[in-house]
Amino acid sequence: MNSNKEVLVTGAAGFIGAAVAKKMLLEGYTVVTVDNLSTGFIDNVPEGVIFYEGNLQDPDVIKQLEKYKFETIFHIAGQSSGEISFDDPVYDLQSNTQSTILLILLSLKINCKKFIYASTMSVYGTQTELPVDEKRLCIPVSFYSVGKLASENYMHIYKNMGIDFFSLRLFNVYGPGQNLNNMRQGMISIYLSQALENGEIIVKGDKNRFRDMIYIDDVVNAFFAAHESTLTGYNIYNVCNSIKITVEDVIKNIQALVDKNLKVEYVGSTPGDIFGIYGTNEKIRKELKWNPKIGIEEGMSRMYKWAIS
Amino acid sequence: MNSNKEVLVTGAAGFIGAAVAKKMLLEGYTVVTVDNLSTGFIDNVPEGVIFYEGNLQDPDVIKQLEKYKFETIFHIAGQSSGEISFDDPVYDLQSNTQSTILLILLSLKINCKKFIYASTMSVYGTQTELPVDEKRLCIPVSFYSVGKLASENYMHIYKNMGIDFFSLRLFNVYGPGQNLNNMRQGMISIYLSQALENGEIIVKGDKNRFRDMIYIDDVVNAFFAAHESTLTGYNIYNVCNSIKITVEDVIKNIQALVDKNLKVEYVGSTPGDIFGIYGTNEKIRKELKWNPKIGIEEGMSRMYKWAIS
Repeated sequence: MNSNKEVLVTGAAGFIGAAVAKKMLLEGYTVVTVDNLSTGFIDNVPEGVIFYEGNLQDPDVIKQLEKYKFETIFHIAGQSSGEISFDDPVYDLQSNTQSTILLILLSLKINCKKFIYASTMSVYGTQTELPVDEKRLCIPVSFYSVGKLASENYMHIYKNMGIDFFSLRLFNVYGPGQNLNNMRQGMISIYLSQALENGEIIVKGDKNRFRDMIYIDDVVNAFFAAHESTLTGYNIYNVCNSIKITVEDVIKNIQALVDKNLKVEYVGSTPGDIFGIYGTNEKIRKELKWNPKIGIEEGMSRMYKWAIS
Repeated sequence: MNSNKEVLVTGAAGFIGAAVAKKMLLEGYTVVTVDNLSTGFIDNVPEGVIFYEGNLQDPDVIKQLEKYKFETIFHIAGQSSGEISFDDPVYDLQSNTQSTILLILLSLKINCKKFIYASTMSVYGTQTELPVDEKRLCIPVSFYSVGKLASENYMHIYKNMGIDFFSLRLFNVYGPGQNLNNMRQGMISIYLSQALENGEIIVKGDKNRFRDMIYIDDVVNAFFAAHESTLTGYNIYNVCNSIKITVEDVIKNIQALVDKNLKVEYVGSTPGDIFGIYGTNEKIRKELKWNPKIGIEEGMSRMYKWAIS
C-alpha cells in the first residue's frame, strides 16, 4: 500500500458516496469526488472534499483526474435504481458500466492499486434458493443489474494486471442521509417519507416481498474494511445482515415510530422487481472481519429521528 | 409471423452479415443493413441490399429505421475480436452492447416480433469441463465477451414483452468471404492468409490450443432456422460442429492445400485468449432441426479455392 493519502470516491453527492467520503476524510485522507448531480445534491458533498462536476462516462472528465495519485478508487456513482433503468437503458449502461471501464483504465494509468466497486444484490436476479452466496449464477432482471454485472466482469478481467478489486454487492441500504424525495428508490426511505408526508403508504407490489436491509454505517465500514484489506485479485462480497425483512415488517416498524395511524395501499408492481431475496454474509465476515452492528429496529429508529429533525 | 418480407441485417459489409443478407435476398426479402464500415467493406454488401452507413450505437442512426416494418432483426454488426476489445473497451461496449439495447427498443417501437443475435462462444470464457452446453455458467475473459453476455442478458429481460429472441453463440466461423487482411481475427483466415502471402505462419500461442470450427454456410443456415422457428421467448444456441480442432490440425490442413513447404513459428500469446473450447450442438439440432453439413477438410478446401481465385 502506498501512503499518498489521496482517494477518489465517485458519487459523493449521493447517499452512500457522501457517507464513504466523510469516513475517508475522518481517516485523514484527501478525498476527491466526481458527481454529475443528476440524482445527488451538491449540499450532500462533505465539506473538504475536492469536487468535480461531470459524467464519469465522459473521457474528458476522467482525464482531469490523472494528476492525482489515488491509493484507492471507490466507484460508487451511478444510476442506482432498477426501476429507473427501464426509462433509459442506454444512460444506465453508460453511467454504470462505461464509467467503470474508464475508471479501471485510469487506475492502470496512475498506478492506483485498489479499486472498490459498489455493486448490488440485484445482480442475482430472481433466485429460488435462499439465502444467496457469492458463487450463485446471476440472472439479472433489470438493465441496472445487467450493467452492474458487466462491471464486475470487467474487473474480473483486470484482476491480473496489478489492481486488487473488491466488489461489494450491497443489499438494501438505508439510513440517515438517504434522499426522502426520491419516490423510485429505497424501500424504507420511500415508505418513511410517505408516512411522514401524508400518513399514507402506497406499496407497489406484494406485502410479503422481502429484502435484506443494511444500515448505512455498516455499509461504510464494509467499504473501509475493503480499503484496509491486504487481499489481492478479485474479491466479491455480499454486504447484508442475512436477515429477511418483509415489506410488512418495514411498515410495522414505521407504524411503531410515528404517532399517527397509517393508511397502507397496495397497487400494481415494479418492472424488474425481485419478489424476495436475502444473502449470506459469511464470506465478508470471514475474509474482511466485517460484522454488521445495527439491526433493523435500531437503524429505523435512527433514521426516523434524522428524518423528522 | 407477419408477411412484410422486410428484414434488417446489421453489419452486411462484414463476413457473416453479408452472407446472411445474401440468403435473405434469395428468400425474397427486402434486406436493409446498417454498417459503419469500420472493419467491413462497402463492396461486401450484396447487391440489392438497402445500405445505411452509420454507428448502431447512435440513436439518430436507429431513428432512420423506424419507417420499416421488419419481420426479423438480425443483429450481426459489432466489434468482433476479443483481442481488439482490449484496445478500446469503451468502443467495444458501445458497438456490441449499446447497439443491442437500441435495436431492441426499435423492435418494440416498430412491432418487430423476432430478434436474432450473433453472440459468441467466448461468453463461456475459460472452461475446464468440455464440451460446453448452453446452461454453463459464463466467465468471460475479454471485453468483447463481457459485452456480448450483457447483450444476451438484455434480451432475456425483454423476453416477456412480445419479442422472440434467438441468441446464436457462434463458435469459430470460417469460410469464403472472410477478411484475409485482418490479422487479428479468425484463426483459419489468419493462418491461411499468412501461408499464401509468405509461406510462413506465425502462431500467437500454443499449437495444442483448440476450437470448434464452423463453416459459414452452416452458420447462415442456423440464422435462417431461427428466422423460421415458431419458438417463443428467449432461446440460446451453440452453433458449432461439436468437434475439437487444434491449431496444429488447421496448419496441417493448410499444408495439405498449398503447394509449398510452410514455416511455422510460435510466439507469445493473445490477451483474453481461451486455451481450448468446443461446444455441444444438441440443443440447436433438436429445437431448430439444424445440422452442420460441411466438415473441416471440405470447408477449408472450399475456402482455399476462394482465397486463391
